[in-house]
Amino acid sequence: MKKPALTLASLLFVFCTSGALLQLRAQASAAADDKKQIEDLEQRFATAFGAKDINTIMSGYAPGKALFVFDVTPPRQYVGWDAYKRDWESFFAQFQGPASLTLSELSVTVVGTVAYSHSIQTGHLTAKDGTRTTLAVRTTDVYRKIGGKWLIVEEHNSVPVDLATGQPDLLSKP
Amino acid sequence: MKKPALTLASLLFVFCTSGALLQLRAQASAAADDKKQIEDLEQRFATAFGAKDINTIMSGYAPGKALFVFDVTPPRQYVGWDAYKRDWESFFAQFQGPASLTLSELSVTVVGTVAYSHSIQTGHLTAKDGTRTTLAVRTTDVYRKIGGKWLIVEEHNSVPVDLATGQPDLLSKP
Repeated sequence: MKKPALTLASLLFVFCTSGALLQLRAQASAAADDKKQIEDLEQRFATAFGAKDINTIMSGYAPGKALFVFDVTPPRQYVGWDAYKRDWESFFAQFQGPASLTLSELSVTVVGTVAYSHSIQTGHLTAKDGTRTTLAVRTTDVYRKIGGKWLIVEEHNSVPVDLATGQPDLLSKP
Repeated sequence: MKKPALTLASLLFVFCTSGALLQLRAQASAAADDKKQIEDLEQRFATAFGAKDINTIMSGYAPGKALFVFDVTPPRQYVGWDAYKRDWESFFAQFQGPASLTLSELSVTVVGTVAYSHSIQTGHLTAKDGTRTTLAVRTTDVYRKIGGKWLIVEEHNSVPVDLATGQPDLLSKP
């Protein structure tokens, strides 16, 4: 039998394929790190909410016009970082007493440099007159890795509304 | 001067790099096609809504447990294709008269095999007693390309709620 020759073509094939495999392995490890970074981002948000620290809250969102948000409250939408910051300012102006936020049911999926999550964000709030409110918000976030850092580019926050009675369910009951 | 030798290493470099460049160009063209496919999916949904064709509506969603939805109405969430299909059945049971849906402000972003969009989906509905309702829903969708076909894996539908008055805004006014 003739020995197969080590041709240039087979060398090229092996070289490029092994490179691709190494890259795939590196990607899997990076995806696990990325998921952890996004979970940390959401936990930082929850802590900052309790401290009413709007600067830390806003550090998790994409700058400029890259951000798009459907929020719990009117109006329809917020386009851009500045607009959403003003939304947070008016939110905490409405609830001036102590606040806290519990993050639960967080599910994050990372695909390369884009990721998405859903979670329940239960806020405990105190209005100007001392009235306490619990608000369980359903949140969907879309993230992009921008300059090595994960940032929220789209957010959708809501509570469900019963169309037959016209009543919202502020606890988003399961 | 000595002429540079065409080494095996430089051959390997040129071969792998040109392959990567061709791949990048193909990806850009594919992304434009992908965006069009997703816009078509959303338009098919809008038409199927008007025909109350639940099978066509559901053909745009990922099968099995891969689907996760926060919908306009309670309960909190729908996990899986079967659960969301039942949600659509009870929705159209509530609005038995003529229906139509206008899709507007659709913005789709494709990143490889994942994509996300936001849009306003304005439904014109007729209840059992003949009462007509207009409902402008804010929709966020996340899509994955599964077996060569784009499908919705996460959806979030809502209308905003004024927390001071407890009233929803069924028109999601801008």
